[in-house]
Amino acid sequence: MAHKDVVNVGMIGCGFMGKTHSFGYRNVNPIWDPPVKAVMKCITGSRSRETCQAAAQSYGWQDYEADWQDMLQRDDIDLVDIGTPNFLHHEQALAAVEAGKDILCEKPLAMTLAEARQMTQAAEEAGVKAMCGFTYRQAPAVRLARQIIEAGEVGEVYHWRAVYLQDWIIDPEFPLVWRLDADTCGSGSLGDLAAHLIDMALLLVGDIAEVSAVLETFVKERPLVAAGGGTGLVDKRAAGQKGQVKVDDAALCCCRFANGAVGTFEATRFAQGHKNGHRWEINGSKGSLAWSLEDMNYLEFYKAGEGNRQGFRKILATEGDTPGWEAWWPAGHIIGYGELFINEIYEMLCAIAEDRQPAPSFRDGLKCQAVLDAFTQSARSKQWVPVPPC
Amino acid sequence: MAHKDVVNVGMIGCGFMGKTHSFGYRNVNPIWDPPVKAVMKCITGSRSRETCQAAAQSYGWQDYEADWQDMLQRDDIDLVDIGTPNFLHHEQALAAVEAGKDILCEKPLAMTLAEARQMTQAAEEAGVKAMCGFTYRQAPAVRLARQIIEAGEVGEVYHWRAVYLQDWIIDPEFPLVWRLDADTCGSGSLGDLAAHLIDMALLLVGDIAEVSAVLETFVKERPLVAAGGGTGLVDKRAAGQKGQVKVDDAALCCCRFANGAVGTFEATRFAQGHKNGHRWEINGSKGSLAWSLEDMNYLEFYKAGEGNRQGFRKILATEGDTPGWEAWWPAGHIIGYGELFINEIYEMLCAIAEDRQPAPSFRDGLKCQAVLDAFTQSARSKQWVPVPPC
Amino acid sequence: MAHKDVVNVGMIGCGFMGKTHSFGYRNVNPIWDPPVKAVMKCITGSRSRETCQAAAQSYGWQDYEADWQDMLQRDDIDLVDIGTPNFLHHEQALAAVEAGKDILCEKPLAMTLAEARQMTQAAEEAGVKAMCGFTYRQAPAVRLARQIIEAGEVGEVYHWRAVYLQDWIIDPEFPLVWRLDADTCGSGSLGDLAAHLIDMALLLVGDIAEVSAVLETFVKERPLVAAGGGTGLVDKRAAGQKGQVKVDDAALCCCRFANGAVGTFEATRFAQGHKNGHRWEINGSKGSLAWSLEDMNYLEFYKAGEGNRQGFRKILATEGDTPGWEAWWPAGHIIGYGELFINEIYEMLCAIAEDRQPAPSFRDGLKCQAVLDAFTQSARSKQWVPVPPC
Amino acid sequence: MAHKDVVNVGMIGCGFMGKTHSFGYRNVNPIWDPPVKAVMKCITGSRSRETCQAAAQSYGWQDYEADWQDMLQRDDIDLVDIGTPNFLHHEQALAAVEAGKDILCEKPLAMTLAEARQMTQAAEEAGVKAMCGFTYRQAPAVRLARQIIEAGEVGEVYHWRAVYLQDWIIDPEFPLVWRLDADTCGSGSLGDLAAHLIDMALLLVGDIAEVSAVLETFVKERPLVAAGGGTGLVDKRAAGQKGQVKVDDAALCCCRFANGAVGTFEATRFAQGHKNGHRWEINGSKGSLAWSLEDMNYLEFYKAGEGNRQGFRKILATEGDTPGWEAWWPAGHIIGYGELFINEIYEMLCAIAEDRQPAPSFRDGLKCQAVLDAFTQSARSKQWVPVPPC
Repeated sequence: MAHKDVVNVGMIGCGFMGKTHSFGYRNVNPIWDPPVKAVMKCITGSRSRETCQAAAQSYGWQDYEADWQDMLQRDDIDLVDIGTPNFLHHEQALAAVEAGKDILCEKPLAMTLAEARQMTQAAEEAGVKAMCGFTYRQAPAVRLARQIIEAGEVGEVYHWRAVYLQDWIIDPEFPLVWRLDADTCGSGSLGDLAAHLIDMALLLVGDIAEVSAVLETFVKERPLVAAGGGTGLVDKRAAGQKGQVKVDDAALCCCRFANGAVGTFEATRFAQGHKNGHRWEINGSKGSLAWSLEDMNYLEFYKAGEGNRQGFRKILATEGDTPGWEAWWPAGHIIGYGELFINEIYEMLCAIAEDRQPAPSFRDGLKCQAVLDAFTQSARSKQWVPVPPC
Repeated sequence: MAHKDVVNVGMIGCGFMGKTHSFGYRNVNPIWDPPVKAVMKCITGSRSRETCQAAAQSYGWQDYEADWQDMLQRDDIDLVDIGTPNFLHHEQALAAVEAGKDILCEKPLAMTLAEARQMTQAAEEAGVKAMCGFTYRQAPAVRLARQIIEAGEVGEVYHWRAVYLQDWIIDPEFPLVWRLDADTCGSGSLGDLAAHLIDMALLLVGDIAEVSAVLETFVKERPLVAAGGGTGLVDKRAAGQKGQVKVDDAALCCCRFANGAVGTFEATRFAQGHKNGHRWEINGSKGSLAWSLEDMNYLEFYKAGEGNRQGFRKILATEGDTPGWEAWWPAGHIIGYGELFINEIYEMLCAIAEDRQPAPSFRDGLKCQAVLDAFTQSARSKQWVPVPPC
Repeated sequence: MAHKDVVNVGMIGCGFMGKTHSFGYRNVNPIWDPPVKAVMKCITGSRSRETCQAAAQSYGWQDYEADWQDMLQRDDIDLVDIGTPNFLHHEQALAAVEAGKDILCEKPLAMTLAEARQMTQAAEEAGVKAMCGFTYRQAPAVRLARQIIEAGEVGEVYHWRAVYLQDWIIDPEFPLVWRLDADTCGSGSLGDLAAHLIDMALLLVGDIAEVSAVLETFVKERPLVAAGGGTGLVDKRAAGQKGQVKVDDAALCCCRFANGAVGTFEATRFAQGHKNGHRWEINGSKGSLAWSLEDMNYLEFYKAGEGNRQGFRKILATEGDTPGWEAWWPAGHIIGYGELFINEIYEMLCAIAEDRQPAPSFRDGLKCQAVLDAFTQSARSKQWVPVPPC
Repeated sequence: MAHKDVVNVGMIGCGFMGKTHSFGYRNVNPIWDPPVKAVMKCITGSRSRETCQAAAQSYGWQDYEADWQDMLQRDDIDLVDIGTPNFLHHEQALAAVEAGKDILCEKPLAMTLAEARQMTQAAEEAGVKAMCGFTYRQAPAVRLARQIIEAGEVGEVYHWRAVYLQDWIIDPEFPLVWRLDADTCGSGSLGDLAAHLIDMALLLVGDIAEVSAVLETFVKERPLVAAGGGTGLVDKRAAGQKGQVKVDDAALCCCRFANGAVGTFEATRFAQGHKNGHRWEINGSKGSLAWSLEDMNYLEFYKAGEGNRQGFRKILATEGDTPGWEAWWPAGHIIGYGELFINEIYEMLCAIAEDRQPAPSFRDGLKCQAVLDAFTQSARSKQWVPVPPC
């Protein structure tokens, strides 16, 4: 796909991810001046032709298709971006591979480990570039954390602790929207939130050996909503009635990593006061690192051995040589959530130009899926469950 | 200018402000869906035709002009955006008024109070919409602060304290770039940094009655640079020699407001560890507010009268009804510096559509200029200096 | 014991806890003016007579005994304070009960659940006042948290998360001191650190139903030390050799509470950069609370339903009506670790004066011990283990 | 005075400072094991014999005197501690010098510069040890700041900024207590709060050359109170009436230091939400330091030249080799406001044992008084006022 100056993008998804990914494509060229330029060729993904057309106009796509399968058949599409609900990833990604397209697929990669494995194998065998959208890896502060770890400044890792705290469904009258629907999403806080934490852990600590997890649903029934919420599904549910909540409100876990470190995970939508509270910390023999998504421009770094001057440094990760910051503003002029998509797409374009897999790849998505699967099994069996190698 | 669906924009400035304002124009329509849409028609402003052409292509402008005066004569330009060094604002703004264009001019509005007064009068008499680019007003957290003040929740104001701390020119070998050149900028930290603080004070506390100020230049000589630094000036200075620094490295001030409050200001480029440390706090009879640009998504709010539960609340100003946040991401998904330009341009487009002056207007820029002028006079005379009404 | 104006105290322990408890007794009368006054009558506890004598003189005790059993026989002792290593608590507490003394015993209450049960039953049957030294309960901010919870301002609790992070034994050459000796302490981070977290959870959330825990020893062998480290034991170990570490360096746990909340615990001595990092957070249907020992004067409180003004309040828990602060300094003049012992002893003196059990009592210590025991069993079996009712 | 093993202390003051200083004397021996031990010999200072007797019993003094002049005549008093309202310092200190006693006098040293000069000269000529009670210097974090500055790690100082924010008299119905009485205190926020900031500036930056200050009284009249509030004065004022407030509610200042640095000061009792908000920051060519009294165990330190790892370190100043911490608890077990008096008295005892002036001395108190005097003159004249050398 990379033997051209441009990459023609076809976006599947007109909802929240359609909006954020469009923000990414619209700005990646002027900000990063990538080796191949993104062209916002076509958007599709919603049930209605009108919605697709409106999305194209609003978000700045040249064209639209009412049916995503039509878009995949077009020769003028190089990269397919899948920003749809989880249950559609498998089918759409396989179809994109089949059509020979490069792929950027939102996380979690799939509904099941089997699906994720099939998608990864298909993409790798076809030799297409396949990225899994763990966007938070692209924060400069996270990339700086990785740089510090790789330089050995954290030493041997002993501890990982990570939480992803939100509070948007505490009200029991909050309806059973598609994000709470097991058929659409497969899980609740697990795939939506814990998946991000797991990807971070795999990136920064390494493979997880085994887990002991809890999945909890605090509110067992919620009001049904009539509409399908942009999922592309015909909704058979009736408003005014209640439906059973089959996904988790919260996911907790203790784990052991392959390298001997131990860790904890917690993801929940029931933590009052936390809007997007993704936080993690690593403790090693030589230092510690901590990061919070709500303060994403900062990295906290503790370096042992500085005597009575030692303390966590609050690094504003906006220096000219902070990885992932190079093209941004002068130091101290922070970036936000939307900019992470710009960075993510820049990584994808570089991978295409350099004929390599992007980071994170489908295989990274698969590794995360294996841990999600182990969480689920462990929560059901109340046993420690090993994570299979991927 | 508002009797159309679109506003054709002509940008003067291919440098840092050209880049940030282009980011604003590129994203304002998809994010905010404004009542009139911005069209990125033409960019100009640099000495070289090639630079203008490259900027047009890189930033997404349809066209370019090598000479800004040519652009002002074009009928297909409705709004002129002036993102040039300070010494050019006066001439360019008057020319834009003359051409009947609406204007968005970067801060500080002018080099002198007289210039600012002339620009403001010209724009108001011509009836064009004229905005001064105090971008930080557009942060949702700042707009929330204003909402809280207007609701009376801070009460009578007693104290204002504001600092703008940077550290990029501490090294005495840092060269005498155009931002340190009195001919180009008129002042150093004063117009660049203190101007932002003053605008905030005028917005949130009200008119300043009198000031006692200090201007200090810690490093009196710096290496000259051969190039004009994109200012459009032919540079007569020789590399390898040193030149005298005629602008301030730091500006400090005590002031009295018209409403009886007292305040302090400090702006400096010599505060190690601070990259973009714009912070302010207001203390009133009923409550207090504090904000920091480096953590721009937060507003700290203290409400008196909550007994042993009282404390500063760290508000993540990202709720659906936070003013200025309405079109952005879900709560907790923060925005950055670039997004403030998107918000700023949205306000300008709304003003055009609603046939009103934008906030902040040229008159707001003039009011700020009057305080800057009083700072300068006070620092020279070592006297308290009253601020004239504007 | 309470039918007098004074309480004559006999302290067992000349080490760290001897020093801190002495700080408590020395200051409780002038600060709190308790209904019965503490008299620092006698100290004992170390192997050497000289050490006891020096401790008496240094810490301000009227007298000393070389043998703690002698002190227990004295009629002029009303309250016995046990500040010795864990393995001595059981014997000394039973002897104190036998002698009819009131008791303040350091945490963890005992080496085993069986010991703790026996101690609690003995004390309750004898009708003596028996306190377990979970000192951190006595922080005004923690008592305010309890007040807020009891007032219903947190609502139904969903989440508990607690960590106790230290970093003092990361160096593998750090010797096998008595705090790392299984015979002396029974456990490592578990009884030393996790015990505090568990007591907080029991106080603020309620009974724990079941746990899934991990105990980890990162450094398996450490240099032996010749001396017994003030434990009163004859040390048979040889310097220059290495000994096996039989206690945990870190303890992790997921749990379910009886009321349906879920929680996590983590205690470790391997978290670089953390000196005394005891932190917890509670999330409920109406609000959230968070506290950190290193910032013990603050309580963070989030109250749902405050619209776009909502945020965590950083309460400086030093108001005149903050529980546990009443006798201290003006607001904002913070207290430290030592003051918690003053507060703790004040609670003990009040309990004696009011003829009631202090809080936390031996029964509270027993409840904690049951959870510690479940941690150990779960870590060994890799199973979920229920916590027996106490 | 130092040729003995003990120092017999006579305390003047039974109020708040009597309580805090007693806390210091009661604990200094067991905590610090000073080279000469403090003996709490006698307390005096209040109008009523009963109050003195009660204070002696409550605070742990062996004896009391109803009249402070009688106490000064006693041969068994070595050190006189003056913890009375400001207007009494001059007379009492001179009398103590006359009696050949060492002195610890609360800040501000005097009501006027002339008084302070006389006291200092008298003490120095008599050769007694004379300390001024700027207690906050004794915080380990502040002493660490001084160590870092002396090691050259901050470099040349450019900026000082300091605030002392309180909020206890915002209510206009708060009465005209002795702390708001010009006859008793001489000033309001100036001598009470700004004095602390000035002492810190003199300690950490150096001599102040000139100031431009503002003194403001927001509430001009307040209810009178009948009682003298423990000041020893017969109060001639009538309850139910209002009296004029003749002291400042707030004091602000810009200054220039002798070494070329510039600075700001702000002290106020009208800053909602701030209880004891004493904060300062220093910016130098090599680094920056910041401290806050409400978080007194922390020091923030920025060290330039650490590339993309640079950031403010939050140092928990509780290491074994942190100056002023040596005798305290293990790292991370914080101290509070009361402990600063223990440290202060330890410094005084060391000075006596080592036959040197303590730090801060009366001369340090005099230097502060000269700056306070310059503030007052500048605020009256609205001119820059030089600070005379002391």
